[in-house]
Amino acid sequence: MARVYEMAEIQLKGEAPAGSQVEVDVMAEITGGGRTLKRKGFYAGNQTYKVRFLPDKAGIYHYKVTGIVTGEGTVEVEPADGKHHGIVRADGTHLRHQDGTFISTFGTTVYALAHQPEELTEETFASLEGGAFNKIRMCVFPKHYEYNKNEPAYHAFARAEDAEQLIFYDNLGGERSVQPFDTHRPDFDFWETFEAKLSRLFEMGIQVDLILFHPYDRWGHSHMTQEDNLRYLDYVLRRLAAYPNIWWSMANEYDLFYDWKIEQWHEIEAYISMNDPYRHLLSNHNCFLEYDYGREAVTHVSVQTRILSRVAELQKEFGKPVCYDECCYEGNLKETWGSISAKEMVNRFWKVTVTGGYCTHGEVILENDIVTKKQQDDAVLWWAKGGKLKGDSPARIKFLREIVESLPAPLDPYPTGLGKMALMSGEELSGMINALSEGQRGFFSVLGRMNEKEKLYHFLSEYTYAGHIGEEVYFYYLGTDCSARFCPEAAEGKSYRAEVINAWDMTREVVSEDYQMGDEIRLPGREYVAVLLCAQHSSISPDDSSERVTNG
Amino acid sequence: MARVYEMAEIQLKGEAPAGSQVEVDVMAEITGGGRTLKRKGFYAGNQTYKVRFLPDKAGIYHYKVTGIVTGEGTVEVEPADGKHHGIVRADGTHLRHQDGTFISTFGTTVYALAHQPEELTEETFASLEGGAFNKIRMCVFPKHYEYNKNEPAYHAFARAEDAEQLIFYDNLGGERSVQPFDTHRPDFDFWETFEAKLSRLFEMGIQVDLILFHPYDRWGHSHMTQEDNLRYLDYVLRRLAAYPNIWWSMANEYDLFYDWKIEQWHEIEAYISMNDPYRHLLSNHNCFLEYDYGREAVTHVSVQTRILSRVAELQKEFGKPVCYDECCYEGNLKETWGSISAKEMVNRFWKVTVTGGYCTHGEVILENDIVTKKQQDDAVLWWAKGGKLKGDSPARIKFLREIVESLPAPLDPYPTGLGKMALMSGEELSGMINALSEGQRGFFSVLGRMNEKEKLYHFLSEYTYAGHIGEEVYFYYLGTDCSARFCPEAAEGKSYRAEVINAWDMTREVVSEDYQMGDEIRLPGREYVAVLLCAQHSSISPDDSSERVTNG
Repeated sequence: MARVYEMAEIQLKGEAPAGSQVEVDVMAEITGGGRTLKRKGFYAGNQTYKVRFLPDKAGIYHYKVTGIVTGEGTVEVEPADGKHHGIVRADGTHLRHQDGTFISTFGTTVYALAHQPEELTEETFASLEGGAFNKIRMCVFPKHYEYNKNEPAYHAFARAEDAEQLIFYDNLGGERSVQPFDTHRPDFDFWETFEAKLSRLFEMGIQVDLILFHPYDRWGHSHMTQEDNLRYLDYVLRRLAAYPNIWWSMANEYDLFYDWKIEQWHEIEAYISMNDPYRHLLSNHNCFLEYDYGREAVTHVSVQTRILSRVAELQKEFGKPVCYDECCYEGNLKETWGSISAKEMVNRFWKVTVTGGYCTHGEVILENDIVTKKQQDDAVLWWAKGGKLKGDSPARIKFLREIVESLPAPLDPYPTGLGKMALMSGEELSGMINALSEGQRGFFSVLGRMNEKEKLYHFLSEYTYAGHIGEEVYFYYLGTDCSARFCPEAAEGKSYRAEVINAWDMTREVVSEDYQMGDEIRLPGREYVAVLLCAQHSSISPDDSSERVTNG
Repeated sequence: MARVYEMAEIQLKGEAPAGSQVEVDVMAEITGGGRTLKRKGFYAGNQTYKVRFLPDKAGIYHYKVTGIVTGEGTVEVEPADGKHHGIVRADGTHLRHQDGTFISTFGTTVYALAHQPEELTEETFASLEGGAFNKIRMCVFPKHYEYNKNEPAYHAFARAEDAEQLIFYDNLGGERSVQPFDTHRPDFDFWETFEAKLSRLFEMGIQVDLILFHPYDRWGHSHMTQEDNLRYLDYVLRRLAAYPNIWWSMANEYDLFYDWKIEQWHEIEAYISMNDPYRHLLSNHNCFLEYDYGREAVTHVSVQTRILSRVAELQKEFGKPVCYDECCYEGNLKETWGSISAKEMVNRFWKVTVTGGYCTHGEVILENDIVTKKQQDDAVLWWAKGGKLKGDSPARIKFLREIVESLPAPLDPYPTGLGKMALMSGEELSGMINALSEGQRGFFSVLGRMNEKEKLYHFLSEYTYAGHIGEEVYFYYLGTDCSARFCPEAAEGKSYRAEVINAWDMTREVVSEDYQMGDEIRLPGREYVAVLLCAQHSSISPDDSSERVTNG
């Protein structure tokens, strides 16, 4: 039995492949829901072949498998259960499931989740049940980094037996000599354990931004030949593409693959987009050098940056959803990327979220009693291994998520003040300035004369964080500004319910049932305040296709 | 009786000038301290002419005045009292008094101090006695702006009687029609009141960054002819140049004089530098467009910016002291420039100060019971009118000042991490990268490949705030980073006393008497922490010329 928006699977028994256990000739023709599809199968070990597909319509599906195993049969697909909504795809700068429901993602990071023992993984899942997050960033391959030195129980592939040693510098500068991986021979134990985690995450309504390559490596997975890279992807796509909750992240910090040429990434990008029959979201995450999100196959921005004011800029440049997939982690490490306060983590989420972007959390809290090198290597930090969430930001992120999910549609950026001008071309700026009255023109013409560096400095540091949903909703986040009075813009002549929100204390107070543009709202004069204006008679009537997912 | 480093004055009686009361032919030849100087005199009203000078050596000074008044005599100049140290001048990127003592300035802003009534001014002085600040930014001309609409008791000059009306838009967009000023006729009541304030500030050991022009004007002082501007400066220089505690700030927000050409500022700059016999510090303060601090007559950077990481960059570019003369104000106004928290004000002071720059405070706290337009116009906000300091930052700024003044010399920036690379030219960067071992080179070569925008984004947001005094002192400020462990750089093989400082709680704790490079220091894992390392056997032996002013 299968269900719409859930992975369906056909299993066949047959002899283990004689040669490659990846490039197996197994193809299913699947007819149902008014269409006929072709899907490649994969070898799952133990004389078992599987073909998976993801139905988006209910009904009886007939399949016929040909190749080194053959078979025929039917799968009955029941209607969706209402809990799952299908693959997430970009719709302009927003994200929607296959059934049309919008999703605003609230991400977290557990890079090495795939390689942690069961007990710890259960703790991680229990933490995720808390509901702050509906997206997780995790890697296929194990991770070698500070606080992450554990040897994985399994690798994705067996080691090649007769190959020359692979010699390379690991990411911490150590010289390594290993047997290369044999990408013709998946380690089925690994893949089964891995899939169990993917399925649990699916059940919890959590999107998986699956990191296919990363440079934090002492085992050689970042030093495979491109032929091996693509064969690995072949197996991933055959095996995992029917998971509805997967996004493809080509890499974490792709630019730290020092010896890779950019063309290698382009080839990987092309391979995935041509071989993924479901067009899952696809992007590539940077450390220093941002990937070109304008490329056709790239579906969204997946940026690492600490400049929180770039959602509108990136949306304008690329016309795609903007995910802040790394903006530092709540924690107490030596490193600047791992020592922002919970308040700052929450602050960053709000800035990105109210401007219509999607932010990702991480936590690196190292206990004080950890002293020795060994203790450090074995430490359990959420961002790599999961476990218990110790920080104070997740509760606040959940609070924000609930507010956003109560809105009738996704937010778009609402640039005002200098931020608005930052988005204008030179011509647009001159046009705006010339249209002003003589009394106002002087001031703005000075702004127009700033050089690029001055512009960047000013626009970065004087940005107003705001979003809107047409004229129905305006959402302002004041960040660390302590204004005690505020006159938010809204649509002229419309009446709004005005709410003052404290992002840190998690309080909401309706301060006016009839706020109109030009009115002044009194604020507490403290940090972390937001103002939400909702039109009193909303003209956006949610229909089936724009209904929000209010819980994963 | 006069004293070294204090203004000396010669008074002569004579008929009031027949024509211009500014361009009077009065010249003194003053011989003493081994030199003969010429100083112009000025008419002070009431049939009195004055010639002022600032002796830097004790002894008997003979003067001979010629021109429309004449006279001869002697002034006895006693040695300095040890409280005053003479004019402040730039020494590389540091500031030193005439007697060689270094000064680190901690500024505040009371723009319209010159135009406030006596009672309020006394309150302001009482607030300044608190000791957080040793520099104040204030204007000669009155200020027209929100919360500052009061009519001044006096103007610097009388109105011209028979001139055509001057018509202009004031800075808030209102059309104005006024009698122009007659810059031949100073209002002596204004200048006397004004000087009384300068003298009080001098007695308190407070430097006055005197703003000669500003655009916040409904009276016409920002719309005078250039001839009138220079005549006004003629009077200012004759009358005030012998004040030891004056710095010339050509303007506040010079770039908001929309109809002025840059050449007009250059002419003003040249006029001041050629006619000021004392070479007081001279700069020009921006709103959006930074002035060219590289110009020869400009003695220091006097910048408005919210990007706190620029001290080293600006020092490198101009080789001059860097004053952050505006970085927003502690307060609760609607405006982003007037709504930073006390914590953020303190945070900004620390960032600028530990990196070897000089920061300026301001406060704009509007009481909640202020409602009407009239109440707002009459409100007393420190940044314009003075009064009582209500904010929480001054006590912390005083705490920082005391620490800095206890150091043996001024701090220089100590760029580390990405901030160090931001200061390198493309060539320097390649050189550094090529000198690295193969294992390290990859990471840094990625950094070298960032485009200008990426560089700016990264260097701005990952800056490490640190300063040093040779190998004797290293001072790290972690800002909002919550690192619980820290391995600060210091000189290899030297022993340091290590202190952990909380900038907000104003606590200091010695955590090691023998910190050595490579050791790990435990920190509280909270925001606003600094670490001060002082070499155990300081090799900097303060001599007379580098002794610090420990209180104004």
